[in-house]
Amino acid sequence: MRRVSVSRSGSTAAAAIRGGLSRSPSRPIHLSAQQHNPNNTNNRTFQTKSKDCSEALAPAARLPEADPEDVTPVRPRQNVKIAEILERRAKAGKLVALTAAGADSDMFKGPSVGKPKAKRWDHHLSEESRIREPCVLKQAAKHLKKPGLISLGGGLPCAEYFPFDSISLKVPRAPNFSEQAAHEHGETVTIGKYDIRDADGVYDLSVALNYHQAHGSAQLMRWVTEHTELVCDPPYADWQSVLTVGSTGALEQALRLLCDRGRGDSLLTEEYSFATAIETASPLGINVVGIPMDDQGLLPEAMDEMLTDWNPDERGGARKPHVLYTVPSGQNPTGATQGKQRREEIYRVCQKHDVYIIEDEPYYFLQMMPTAELAVESGVEEGGLEEEDVDQFLDSLIPTLLSMDVDGRVMRMDSFSKVVVPGSRLGWITASEQIIERYLRHAEVCNQGPSGFSQIILYKLLDEKWGHEGYLRWLMNLRKEYTKRRDTIVRACERHLPQEVVSWKPPAAGMFHWIRVDHTQHPDSSTKSILEIEEEIFNSCIAKGVLVGRGSWFRAEQDKPPTGLFFRTTFAAATPENMTEAIRRFGEAIRESYRMS
Amino acid sequence: MRRVSVSRSGSTAAAAIRGGLSRSPSRPIHLSAQQHNPNNTNNRTFQTKSKDCSEALAPAARLPEADPEDVTPVRPRQNVKIAEILERRAKAGKLVALTAAGADSDMFKGPSVGKPKAKRWDHHLSEESRIREPCVLKQAAKHLKKPGLISLGGGLPCAEYFPFDSISLKVPRAPNFSEQAAHEHGETVTIGKYDIRDADGVYDLSVALNYHQAHGSAQLMRWVTEHTELVCDPPYADWQSVLTVGSTGALEQALRLLCDRGRGDSLLTEEYSFATAIETASPLGINVVGIPMDDQGLLPEAMDEMLTDWNPDERGGARKPHVLYTVPSGQNPTGATQGKQRREEIYRVCQKHDVYIIEDEPYYFLQMMPTAELAVESGVEEGGLEEEDVDQFLDSLIPTLLSMDVDGRVMRMDSFSKVVVPGSRLGWITASEQIIERYLRHAEVCNQGPSGFSQIILYKLLDEKWGHEGYLRWLMNLRKEYTKRRDTIVRACERHLPQEVVSWKPPAAGMFHWIRVDHTQHPDSSTKSILEIEEEIFNSCIAKGVLVGRGSWFRAEQDKPPTGLFFRTTFAAATPENMTEAIRRFGEAIRESYRMS
Repeated sequence: MRRVSVSRSGSTAAAAIRGGLSRSPSRPIHLSAQQHNPNNTNNRTFQTKSKDCSEALAPAARLPEADPEDVTPVRPRQNVKIAEILERRAKAGKLVALTAAGADSDMFKGPSVGKPKAKRWDHHLSEESRIREPCVLKQAAKHLKKPGLISLGGGLPCAEYFPFDSISLKVPRAPNFSEQAAHEHGETVTIGKYDIRDADGVYDLSVALNYHQAHGSAQLMRWVTEHTELVCDPPYADWQSVLTVGSTGALEQALRLLCDRGRGDSLLTEEYSFATAIETASPLGINVVGIPMDDQGLLPEAMDEMLTDWNPDERGGARKPHVLYTVPSGQNPTGATQGKQRREEIYRVCQKHDVYIIEDEPYYFLQMMPTAELAVESGVEEGGLEEEDVDQFLDSLIPTLLSMDVDGRVMRMDSFSKVVVPGSRLGWITASEQIIERYLRHAEVCNQGPSGFSQIILYKLLDEKWGHEGYLRWLMNLRKEYTKRRDTIVRACERHLPQEVVSWKPPAAGMFHWIRVDHTQHPDSSTKSILEIEEEIFNSCIAKGVLVGRGSWFRAEQDKPPTGLFFRTTFAAATPENMTEAIRRFGEAIRESYRMS
Repeated sequence: MRRVSVSRSGSTAAAAIRGGLSRSPSRPIHLSAQQHNPNNTNNRTFQTKSKDCSEALAPAARLPEADPEDVTPVRPRQNVKIAEILERRAKAGKLVALTAAGADSDMFKGPSVGKPKAKRWDHHLSEESRIREPCVLKQAAKHLKKPGLISLGGGLPCAEYFPFDSISLKVPRAPNFSEQAAHEHGETVTIGKYDIRDADGVYDLSVALNYHQAHGSAQLMRWVTEHTELVCDPPYADWQSVLTVGSTGALEQALRLLCDRGRGDSLLTEEYSFATAIETASPLGINVVGIPMDDQGLLPEAMDEMLTDWNPDERGGARKPHVLYTVPSGQNPTGATQGKQRREEIYRVCQKHDVYIIEDEPYYFLQMMPTAELAVESGVEEGGLEEEDVDQFLDSLIPTLLSMDVDGRVMRMDSFSKVVVPGSRLGWITASEQIIERYLRHAEVCNQGPSGFSQIILYKLLDEKWGHEGYLRWLMNLRKEYTKRRDTIVRACERHLPQEVVSWKPPAAGMFHWIRVDHTQHPDSSTKSILEIEEEIFNSCIAKGVLVGRGSWFRAEQDKPPTGLFFRTTFAAATPENMTEAIRRFGEAIRESYRMS
C-alpha cells in the first residue's frame, strides 16, 4: 500500500482515490505513517529529517490508497449520514498533509455520481477576477512531489524557530456544554509541535504555524467539507469548500469577483439589509438595489418584476443586476427567515434572470423553536429540543439555498462567529470549482487564508474532540439558549411596549428582533418625516439608557426615504434582567414621543 | 483617581492622559480595578455582570488617570529606551480594554513635542478609498460610554457561549530560546476566559475571542506601538500603528488605497521584485515599473531620471508613478540590503517627485554579521553577537525608511512571519493618521483585523512573558541562526559552483541568496535566449533533485526580456547537509548546461 498525491492538478490521482473508496475497506483512521507506508520514497515527513523544512513542504495532502478488501460499513441507528462520513474516513486511512499542502474538497466528499456539473459563470466575472494569474511561486510547489528533491525554493521558515512547544485547550466535553461544566469538568487537549512525527498525529504546530495554502489546511478543509455535505449536500458534482478569514472578508472578495465598477454593476439585496454589506459594496462602485420584503424576507415576485422591467436608462445607467446578496435565516436586521417554499421561489427567479446568489448564513443554526406561547398552542413542550437526536435536528432545519442549487449558482458563506467564536476570524465558503478557483487566486494575494492558530484550535475542538455529532449537539444546545433569549425579549415587548402603535413578529432564527412603530399614528406625522421621528425616539432611548439600532441605518438604498419606522434590537448580548429593563426604557421613549401618558 | 476614556474622537481625554503623564508617577503596572478605581460608575467590566455582554462592549480602551505625585524614573544602565517605555506604562497604570474597545497609538506613544505633523495625501488616494464611509454600526458604539446604558445594539455573542475555558502555551524562557530548551524547560502560560474579571488580567479569552475593532486589540497595539517607537521612532507627530492580517493583505489594501485603475496609476519597485507583490498589483490594473538595481538594491539616481523623464505618451498612457514598493533589507529575491545612505537618497528622490513609499520589511531583523571570512578580515570574532546587549543590537541595525520619514510619506509593513511564525497571519503597519484612518475603513469590511487567537497568544508571549527586551534577545538569537545558515550556503557555493561563470554577493540580511550566471559565456548564447538557458538549467536542476527559483519569475515587468541570468536560493529551510548537497546538484546542472566537464 502506498500513498498518493491528490491535488486539483492531479485529477487522475484524485479520481483513483475516489474510485478506490467505492471498493475499499473500513480501517482505523489513525495509522502511523510507518504502519501503512513502510517504504514510500515520497514520504517526506518530519519523521526522519525534523530540521529540514525544505522537505516538509508537501505539494498536496495525501491519503493512502485504499485496501480493496474488508467492507464492513458501520451505521449506528441514530445517524446514517455521520456514519457514512466516518466510514469514508476509515476507508481513506490517515490524512497526511504537511507544511503548505494543497488540498481540495474532492479528497473528502462522497461520490458525485449522477450529479450535473455546475454552469460556467465567465460572463459574470469582473475584469479584475478574469485577469488574475496564479502565484508563480505557489505553482513551483508542484516540483516538490519529486522523491528526494531538496527545495531551495520557497522562503518558508523552519519550524525549529517557532517559539511554541505546545498549546493546550480546556474545552467542554459534549454534551455538557455549559460554561460551568467546561470550567469544572472540561477536557484538556494538547497540541504538540511535532505531533505528526512524534505522536501519530494528523496536524501539529510545526504545520499549522508555518505558511499554508490560501484555501486553508487539509485537516480543517476535510471537516468543513464533510459538515457541508451533512447539512447541505449540494446537488451538483463539482462543489468545493475552502476556508475564509470570515464572511466579512469573503463577501468583499465575492463582490470583487462578480461585480465590476466599469460595467455599471448592481447588487440586489433585501430592502433592509446588513449595513456592513452595503458599506462593502458602495466604495467598489456597485449600485445596491433593495427588494421589498415581508415577514419571510425578500419577495420573489417583486424581484422578478424588478428584473423583468429593468431599464438601465431609468436606473442611471446601471446594468441589470446579476448578483443577489441574501441572508435567508434570521436576516440582519429584520430577523426574517425565508421558508422552504420562499427559498425555492427565490432560486427560480434567479434562474430565470441569470442571477448569481451569495447566501450569507451566519445564523442558520440559530433556527429556534416557536415562542413559549406558540409552543403551548402547537403542543410542543418546553425543553422538547433536548430530546432531539442530531438527525431530527438536521431534518428540522429549513433547507439551504445551496441544497437546492442544481446550477452551481450559489456561493454559501458559513461562519463560526455566531456559533463558536467571532475571534477565530475563520469561516468557509462553498461554491462551484470555477468560482472557488478564482476566489483562491485572490485570497492568495489578499489574506493567504485564516490564522493557523485558529485553524488548529478549531480542528482540535470540532474534529478531534467533538466530531460531527458533538458539534451538532453543541448547535442544538445553542439554539435552545437563543430560543430562551428570544422568548425573554418577546415577553418584555409584550409587557412594556405600547401595542397600539408597536408591532413585531417573533423572529424564527438569529439574534435580532425587528420592531415596527406605526409612524402614521405619531402626533407629528403630518409635520415630521419618518427619519425625524426615528431620531427623536433614538435620542430619547440614549437619554433613558438603552441603545437600539435605527431602522434607517439598514436601508439598502441610503438615498431613498425609509418606508416605515423600525428599530433593531438584539437579544444576543444582555442578561435577561437587563434586556427586560432595556425594553422597558425603549417603551418609555416611544410613549413619550407619541405623547401617551 | 478615576478612569477616563481614550479614543480618537475623544481627543480631550487623550490629551489629558498624555498631559498627565508628564507630571505623574511611577506605579505598578498591574493594579486591580478595585484598587485604583473603587467607585467608578463608568467601569463596565465583567466583575459585576459577567453574563451581560451588552455592557462589556467598551467604547474605547481606558487608562486610569495618573496620580500627580511620586516621580521616580527607573532607568537601568543597559537600556534607556525600554526603561522609558516601562516607566510610561507604570505611570499610565493598568490598561483596561474590554470587548471591541477602540484604541490608537496615541494612547501608548511617548511625547511628540516638536515633531511636525505628516503631510496630507488626499491627491494620492484612489476613488475607492476617498469615498469610503465609516461603518454606521461601529460608529454607534460611541453611545456605550454613557454610564448605565444597556445595549441592544450590536449583535455580539455572549462570551458565556464560547467553548474555551482556557488556553495554555508552552514557550521558551528568554534568553534560552533553543527548541530543546523550550521543550525541556519551557514556561507554561495560561490564558483564562475571565482573567480580566477574576485574575487581575489585562486581556482574556472573553475579550480576545469576541469581535474586535479592525485595528486589533488595544493590548497588542500597545506592544507594537512601543516596539515601533523603540526601533523606528518616526520623526513626525501623528504616526499610528495598527494590526494587519499580515503584509500580503496589507499590501493589497495599500495598493487599493493609493492606486486607481481609472487614473492609469503605476507602481515603482525594484527591477527584480517579490513575485506575489507584482501579482497583487497587476489584476488591479496597476502598471508595475522596475527600477534598475545594484548590490544595495534600487538605484536612486535611476529612479530620479525615470521620474524626471516620465512621459505618459511613451508609457501607454501610464501616469507618472506616485507610489514606490520596496523591500529595503534582504530584498526578495535578490537579497540586496540598502545601506543607510542609500535609504536617505531614495527618500530624497521620493520627496522630489511626490512619491509615497511602501516599506515592506519582513527581513529587517535578519540583518546578519559579515560572513566568517569577512568577519575575520574585519576583526569581528565569531560568536561576537552573543556578547551584544539589546541597545547595541538596535544600534547595529540600518535605520528604517520610517525612521527618516519627516513627511509621513512611508507606510512601513512589519511582519511576524519570518521572525515568530507565519501562521499567526498577523502583522502591523505604521503610517500617518490620515492613511491609517483610510486603511481601517477598508479593513473593517475586508477582514476585520487579525484572529483573536493570534492576538492573545502573541500578546502573552511578546508582552507578558518576554517583554521588549526578551523579544529583542529572541531576534538577536534568530539573526545568529540565520547568519550560520547564510554562511553554510555561501561556503557551499564557493565549493560547488563554477566560479568562472557564477558570481554572487553574500546577502547581508534575509533568507535569500541570489546567484548570477554569466549568460554571455554560455556555449549557446548566440542562439538561445536568456529565458531558454534559464529553463534548461532549471529543468536540469529538477531532474537532479534541487528546486531553485528562476530569476525571470521575479521580473517587475514580465513582458520585458530579462537583463541577466539569475537564480534565487533560500537558506531558510533546508538542513546544512541538504543545503550543501542541493548547491552541489545546482552546480552540476550549470556545468552540464555550460558543457564544463
